[in-house]
Amino acid sequence: MTPKRLNFITGNANKLREVEAILGDLVDLRSQSLDLVEVQGTIDDISVDKCRRAAELVKGPVLVEDTCLCFNALKGLPGPYVKWFLHDIGLEGEVHFAAAKDALADEPEGLNNLLAAYDDKTAQAVCTFAYSEGPGSEPKIFQGRTDVRVSHYLLVVGQILTYVKGKIVPARGPSRFGWDPIFEYEGRTYAEMTALEKNKISHRSKALEKLKAWLKGDA
Amino acid sequence: MTPKRLNFITGNANKLREVEAILGDLVDLRSQSLDLVEVQGTIDDISVDKCRRAAELVKGPVLVEDTCLCFNALKGLPGPYVKWFLHDIGLEGEVHFAAAKDALADEPEGLNNLLAAYDDKTAQAVCTFAYSEGPGSEPKIFQGRTDVRVSHYLLVVGQILTYVKGKIVPARGPSRFGWDPIFEYEGRTYAEMTALEKNKISHRSKALEKLKAWLKGDA
Repeated sequence: MTPKRLNFITGNANKLREVEAILGDLVDLRSQSLDLVEVQGTIDDISVDKCRRAAELVKGPVLVEDTCLCFNALKGLPGPYVKWFLHDIGLEGEVHFAAAKDALADEPEGLNNLLAAYDDKTAQAVCTFAYSEGPGSEPKIFQGRTDVRVSHYLLVVGQILTYVKGKIVPARGPSRFGWDPIFEYEGRTYAEMTALEKNKISHRSKALEKLKAWLKGDA
Repeated sequence: MTPKRLNFITGNANKLREVEAILGDLVDLRSQSLDLVEVQGTIDDISVDKCRRAAELVKGPVLVEDTCLCFNALKGLPGPYVKWFLHDIGLEGEVHFAAAKDALADEPEGLNNLLAAYDDKTAQAVCTFAYSEGPGSEPKIFQGRTDVRVSHYLLVVGQILTYVKGKIVPARGPSRFGWDPIFEYEGRTYAEMTALEKNKISHRSKALEKLKAWLKGDA
């Protein structure tokens, strides 16, 4: 039996909005903010552990989410630890545009600079939802990853435009949501897309489509 | 009452050897390897949580240890997550010397390359021991940090030699122990020092001196 109501554990209004946009007409979506400790480990281990803890705290069904940004040159890191890097060193560009001119001479800041030594700037965004029916019930995982393949477009003028899908770039676009300004997908950063555009291709929407299929009984 | 016997939770022979060298004549040191999950968070939070879990598993007194490598340009990161980076991307130099010549043309690898964008290569090694008397007993923390100040030496020839204490460099010296080859302290990497030399200045020995003082009843 799939649930008719989901208790999404998040304190992040942006994530809630993205989930509502995709699942809102299918289930009764509630949200609750919990101060949950996360473990270190693989992406799946972290989500499963977090989901178990949440179910025990809430004593009922829960949906949790974890987002990773995996740099290929760093073999998938910072991955699940990206939030600490984002919190502590921010994004290049974003920080400097806001700072006084003097600060421009200072050290660069930002997550994107971790790749300064590498030519390979490709990256993959990974979104993992985990659902548990309650304490003691094994969490079910729904994961979405952005593609990393190159895409080609034949333009009207006869030229071929090539985009790497998923690439780390200096920050572009409004910094309303985490590392969106430095994650470029087919030529535009997440931050440069509208919510609708992003929801079509994002790691989170891919995970949500799997969750949606399961809720509808298709998976 | 301080313990006469310590059950050091580690599967790392090198760490055990360093602890034995400093505490061996003061307590009966046993060691046990446990598969312990670590949480994400501050250095202290991670150690306290790990110590609590170990005490519950062992149902008795435990000593646990955690080592962090904090890059100042990255505001202290990778810090407690350094082991994942070390495991996944290794150290530059170490990897390449072992690799075939062709591999030299490939992407650089290594923890040290995270600082490629930054002039500030200073770093601090932090060692945290946590001791708990057993399940439900609040862990006690003993922490040691390497200095980050610059040190000056007046040479016989009248020159002044200046060393930054704690700096990330391309790997030098035998790679017998984690990131020792890339952590330079007063001109030499940890890997270039003898065990005795390293034990005089290391983050681990500083933490162990605090633990030792407590065991002797001085602290």
